[in-house]
Amino acid sequence: MDLSRSPLALPFPDMPAIDGVTLRAARARYKDWDRADLTYVELAEGTSVAGVFTRSACPSTEVEMGREQVKSGTARALVVNAGNANAFTGHRGREAVEQIMAQVSDHLGCDPSEVFVSSTGVIGVPLPKDKAQAGIAAALQSAPCNWEDAANTIATTDTFAKGATASAMVGGKRVELAAIIKGSGMIAPDMATMLGYIFTDAAVAPEFLQQLLSASNVQTFSCITVDSDTSTSDTVLAFATGKAGNATLTSFEDAGADAFAAALHDVCRQLAHLVVRDGEGARKFIEIEVTGAVSDASAHTVGMSIANSPLVKTAIAGEDANWGRVVMAVGKAGEPADRDRLAIRFADKWVAQAGLAVDSYDEAPIAAHLKGQEISIGVDLGLGQGRATVWTCDLTHGYIDINADYRS
Amino acid sequence: MDLSRSPLALPFPDMPAIDGVTLRAARARYKDWDRADLTYVELAEGTSVAGVFTRSACPSTEVEMGREQVKSGTARALVVNAGNANAFTGHRGREAVEQIMAQVSDHLGCDPSEVFVSSTGVIGVPLPKDKAQAGIAAALQSAPCNWEDAANTIATTDTFAKGATASAMVGGKRVELAAIIKGSGMIAPDMATMLGYIFTDAAVAPEFLQQLLSASNVQTFSCITVDSDTSTSDTVLAFATGKAGNATLTSFEDAGADAFAAALHDVCRQLAHLVVRDGEGARKFIEIEVTGAVSDASAHTVGMSIANSPLVKTAIAGEDANWGRVVMAVGKAGEPADRDRLAIRFADKWVAQAGLAVDSYDEAPIAAHLKGQEISIGVDLGLGQGRATVWTCDLTHGYIDINADYRS
Repeated sequence: MDLSRSPLALPFPDMPAIDGVTLRAARARYKDWDRADLTYVELAEGTSVAGVFTRSACPSTEVEMGREQVKSGTARALVVNAGNANAFTGHRGREAVEQIMAQVSDHLGCDPSEVFVSSTGVIGVPLPKDKAQAGIAAALQSAPCNWEDAANTIATTDTFAKGATASAMVGGKRVELAAIIKGSGMIAPDMATMLGYIFTDAAVAPEFLQQLLSASNVQTFSCITVDSDTSTSDTVLAFATGKAGNATLTSFEDAGADAFAAALHDVCRQLAHLVVRDGEGARKFIEIEVTGAVSDASAHTVGMSIANSPLVKTAIAGEDANWGRVVMAVGKAGEPADRDRLAIRFADKWVAQAGLAVDSYDEAPIAAHLKGQEISIGVDLGLGQGRATVWTCDLTHGYIDINADYRS
Repeated sequence: MDLSRSPLALPFPDMPAIDGVTLRAARARYKDWDRADLTYVELAEGTSVAGVFTRSACPSTEVEMGREQVKSGTARALVVNAGNANAFTGHRGREAVEQIMAQVSDHLGCDPSEVFVSSTGVIGVPLPKDKAQAGIAAALQSAPCNWEDAANTIATTDTFAKGATASAMVGGKRVELAAIIKGSGMIAPDMATMLGYIFTDAAVAPEFLQQLLSASNVQTFSCITVDSDTSTSDTVLAFATGKAGNATLTSFEDAGADAFAAALHDVCRQLAHLVVRDGEGARKFIEIEVTGAVSDASAHTVGMSIANSPLVKTAIAGEDANWGRVVMAVGKAGEPADRDRLAIRFADKWVAQAGLAVDSYDEAPIAAHLKGQEISIGVDLGLGQGRATVWTCDLTHGYIDINADYRS
């Protein structure tokens, strides 16, 4: 299978070192490949942690354990296995995760619950314990690596390494954020689970870090879709080492909390967009803004209905201003909508208003917009003040190529 | 665009004449094509009618009016326009429908509300009133046509004509059912709205006919999907002329009511399957049976989550026994599920049970099954007695070809 670099790829950014974070990579050879596939991140004592996880009712062991581990609020290490998702592997999969936690906590002298584990790759095959043990041993003896190495090591079918960074002033101290993510479908259990990790040297209480991450998640990771499918393993973790020396942020009343929240939100949005930009087969990045809904939640549902519609996504792939398919997707969303108040735009050109095609409809500027790589669609429901913005990609032959896995 | 006959097509069946039903077709030339595109069906006085319609919040005028018209319970005529869906056309679209109703009711001397109108094709363009008027005039003067002619006339991008028939004994009288349908996506507003029409010579009270049609709809038309998209115009109407002379059926307590209900259900299931068999780009017909759910409704939701998953549908296209994607689709359905009780089969071979791949897993018979055209997937949730069966097709390059409409 030829996984050439996405035409929507962005260059890997310059990323700062984060005090209290050490990255290492090793070859565990979870698959028959010659590349690093085990990422080990050591975190300074006192690191806060927060996480958001897939809502799948059939999650991986790693997700089940991670949901519990974040409750303690502290972390000392992260291990990411690429090539095997260890999902739907029952007690054997759980034993492998527990072994990794024990091996690392023995090394660090910490509690096993402070060792976070993620896995991505084929499902239904228990993570091989011998390979994990040897891989971690190799990682512990290896030289530290950089952000791009780590981003490549957590990747599976991603076509480019994905990183994001931001900074903020918190109580007179400059704090840095650096983050990596993998994922190229919203998820495919054996292809492209979304795993994201955000690191900062800011001092942030775990409860507040969780509050901020959960809030950003609603407007970023929860607003992207490639194919409407949801991973058994989707995970985003945020780690705050506290090495920047700011007074620990505990609520929005603390000086600099707003700035840190904005920086964290910025990083989450960057990461989310990068996943869409590597969407399987993607050739166009699509932003869908819904306004005039009865609530923000309703706007989000309508937006995702449009973003998940195969007919909308194939129309964009075909550079066809087929606004009728947008009407269809609004209509099927199950949310309040009034056909005769609905308005639809491509870029800044309204194509339909008040339930009718606009009289002055001129397809030329819209056709020009659709030939680009960055597509903007707007829908105004004309009912209230609810709004949401979501992002997706087009649906192309590339998606079928990657996922139908025709056997020769 | 080359729309070659679906490999899953079935031959058009021998269909009986239905006493009280006269079919005619004419060229209204709604598009620049040389084919019949207006179907006119005259129904005997006293014909009962029932209908089920799209749940879209943005339906066509025809759907809005049809929902009201069926409440009266009687019908004298049906007009189906192909090539223009007349959806999202505001007051101008409504005027066209009202003109058709007036023209036909003047001819028959009936109430305009007894004239049912459906339209399918491009949306956003008001149905041209002059073409409709001339087309109906031509239809009224034409010789009657047969079922296959009518099935071809209501079609748009369908690749084969679709008909179904059944019969039943009701109180000592044999009653016949004959039906036609069009549709090849679950819907595309400018491509493939599902429109189905069932005709019978049985005498059935409208309220009972509605009760039976609604019940069958839940287990047939509501259990199919091609691409998860929902039409602005989906319509299924049932007409009962009463010419068979049976005592009018009014409830399940009447003799023969069970037999008629079974025949109607059989026709609905046949029609629903035919639409899947003409799914855009379809090469495999997929039956998904969900058992062990907490309720039938829950089983239906899980089944549709699997049937709508692009990753499941591309795996089947690739003849890949990727049961991990089925786990994923169960997990994302939002219904009660327990990973460690879940079992999955392809054909009659269980591939996973109790949260693990089965030890004796042998891919050979499953691979052989997946090379066929008729695919069976089973999921047992292990939680209760709820069950449902749904049907879909695979997702192939053909779907992208048809819907991306690459412009040369």
